[in-house]
Amino acid sequence: MKPKLLSGDRITGKLHLGHYAGSLKKRVELQHSYDCYVLLADVQALTTHYENPEIVSENLRNVAMDYLACGIDPSLSTLFIQSMIPEIAELTVYFSMFVTVNSLRHNPTIKSEAAERGYKQMYYGFLGYPVSQAADIAICKAELIPVGEDQLPHIEQTRKIIRRFHQLYAPIFPEPQALISETPRLMGLDGNSKMSKGLNNAILLDSTRDEVNDNIQRAKTDPARIQKHDPGHPEICTVFSYYQAFSPELTNEIYSSCTQGKIGCKDCKKTIANQINVLLEPMRERRDIYSRNAKQVDEILIAGTEHARTTAKETMQEVRDAMKINYFA
Amino acid sequence: MKPKLLSGDRITGKLHLGHYAGSLKKRVELQHSYDCYVLLADVQALTTHYENPEIVSENLRNVAMDYLACGIDPSLSTLFIQSMIPEIAELTVYFSMFVTVNSLRHNPTIKSEAAERGYKQMYYGFLGYPVSQAADIAICKAELIPVGEDQLPHIEQTRKIIRRFHQLYAPIFPEPQALISETPRLMGLDGNSKMSKGLNNAILLDSTRDEVNDNIQRAKTDPARIQKHDPGHPEICTVFSYYQAFSPELTNEIYSSCTQGKIGCKDCKKTIANQINVLLEPMRERRDIYSRNAKQVDEILIAGTEHARTTAKETMQEVRDAMKINYFA
Repeated sequence: MKPKLLSGDRITGKLHLGHYAGSLKKRVELQHSYDCYVLLADVQALTTHYENPEIVSENLRNVAMDYLACGIDPSLSTLFIQSMIPEIAELTVYFSMFVTVNSLRHNPTIKSEAAERGYKQMYYGFLGYPVSQAADIAICKAELIPVGEDQLPHIEQTRKIIRRFHQLYAPIFPEPQALISETPRLMGLDGNSKMSKGLNNAILLDSTRDEVNDNIQRAKTDPARIQKHDPGHPEICTVFSYYQAFSPELTNEIYSSCTQGKIGCKDCKKTIANQINVLLEPMRERRDIYSRNAKQVDEILIAGTEHARTTAKETMQEVRDAMKINYFA
Repeated sequence: MKPKLLSGDRITGKLHLGHYAGSLKKRVELQHSYDCYVLLADVQALTTHYENPEIVSENLRNVAMDYLACGIDPSLSTLFIQSMIPEIAELTVYFSMFVTVNSLRHNPTIKSEAAERGYKQMYYGFLGYPVSQAADIAICKAELIPVGEDQLPHIEQTRKIIRRFHQLYAPIFPEPQALISETPRLMGLDGNSKMSKGLNNAILLDSTRDEVNDNIQRAKTDPARIQKHDPGHPEICTVFSYYQAFSPELTNEIYSSCTQGKIGCKDCKKTIANQINVLLEPMRERRDIYSRNAKQVDEILIAGTEHARTTAKETMQEVRDAMKINYFA
C-alpha cells in the first residue's frame, strides 16, 4: 500500500498559474508514488466566506475542472468534498476538547491571516481552522502533506494534536510530515505581490491563448528599461520570473539577451506567452473533453467523496473505540 | 403537531434527587403536551471529561435507566445520544463561522464554570460549548428549552446565532424560548452546597430504601437544635427543604412542630425518608423491569437516536440548501 498524501485548496475561485507552479504540478507527479487525496475545502473556504457562500458553490466545479484539466487523474487521486464528510466535523469536535485557545491565538499563520483580512473581531471558527485542518489530515490518515513554508505552523499543530490524542487514548494515526514546496510563490502580473485572483493579477488556468497573450503583455517588467537596447535587470522582472517557473531551459539565454539589451520586452513577453500556452494546451484539451460531459465531473466528485467517506467512517470507528464511546459495537 | 421541547443532561454520573426535583419531574409532565427530545449529552460531557472518557461510557446506560425509571416514556419522548448524531458537529462548524470569540469569552456561565473547574487554560472546545448547544437545539428545531436561571445566557446566545443564520441565509429554525424552572436548586445532604454526586452529598435515584434512610439520617439540620424540645429553624434546615421539594403537603405541619419543639430531628427525618421512598418506589419497579432486560434499554436508545437522526438529517438538508452547498441536490 502506498502512503497517503493529502493536498487541497480552499474553494474561493478558479485556480491560476500560481497554484500550478506552487503546487498542482508537483501533485500531478506525486500521484504516481502516493495514495493521493485531494480535498475541495469548501467548509474551510466558508470560514472566511460565510457571508458569500455562493462564491464557494459557484467555484466548486470550476476547481474540480482545474484539477482534472491540469492532470490530476481520478484513477490515481481521490477528489473529495469537505462538506460531504461529516466525520471531519465530528473529529474536529473531539480534537477541540484538548487544544488550548492560547495555542491557536499564538499560531503565527492565524495571526498574520487575521491581520491580512483586517479582522477587528476574531471568529470562533476562523480561530479553530487549524483544528479542523488537523481533522482533515487525521481522518484520511495522511502521512505526507505538501505545503508552503507559511503552512508549517499548522502541520506542527496537527502533529501536536495527534500526539496528544495518542497519549490520551490510543495510537491510531500516523504523525504527518510536511513536504515543503521549494518553489517560491509566483509573482502576480502587477509585480507587486504574489499571484492572486482577488488582486486581479493572475493568469487563470482556463485562459484562452489570447487571454494569456494579453495578460502577459500587461505584466510588469524592469521599469528602468525604456528602450530595447537599455540593459535590463531580470532579477527584478516579473516576466523573467515566469521564465524561471515555466521555461527554466530558456533562462540563461534570456538573462544574457536582457542584460545585454539584445531582446526587447515585447519579444521576451511573446516568447514566454507562447511557452505558457504550450503548457496550457493539454489542459485545454482535457478541459474540453470534460466540459462536453459535465455529468462526468459530478460523478468523479461523488465517487471520490464516497471513497474518502469510507476511509473517514473507518477512522471514526477507531476514534470511538479509542475514546470508549462505541456503545453498541 | 406538538411543539418540540429539548432537554438533556451531560453524562457524567448517575442522576439524583436534585435532578428529579429541578428538572426530571417537570419533563415527565411535559412529555404529554410537547414532542420531547431528551439528549444524552456525551460529547458535551467529554468536553470537560476528555481525560476520563470511561466516566462517560460507564454512565450512559445508567442515565438512560434513570430517565426510564423516573417515568420518561420512550413512546412520548425521544431519547438520543449526542455522539451518534454527526449532524450536530456539522452544524456546530457552520455556526462557529459567525460567532465571535469575544461573545463566548464574555458569556457569564462560561466564565463562572471555567473558574469553578479551576481552568488555568481555556480549551477551545470548552469555550465553544454554547455554540454546540445552539446546534443541539437547532438541529431538532426545538422551540422550548427547560433550563435553570444559570443557563439563560446560553439560550440567549442560541437565539442570537439563529437570528444571524436567518439574516445570512434563510429563516429555517424556530427561535427557541427558555422555560425557566422555578424550583430552587436542591440542597445537598451536607447543607453546604447544592446536591451533586461529585460532592458526595446526593441521594441517587437508584438508592435502595435503606440507602435513603441512612443518607437522610446524616443530613444536616439546624445546628442550634440540641434537644428535641429546642425550638428549630426550618428555614435553615436541609431536611425541611426536602419536605418543600417532595412533601409540600406536610410543610405547614412540620414547620409548626419544629418551631414549637414538638418533633425531634430523628422522627422528622424518618418521615421525609419515608416520603422519599414513596416517591422512589414506582421508579424502583420500573428500573427492575428494565434491569431484567438490558437489551430493551439499548433498543430504546438506538431507536430514539435513529429518530433524532432522521430529524437532524432533514434539518441539515435545509441548512445546505440555505447555504447553497447542496451541490448534487
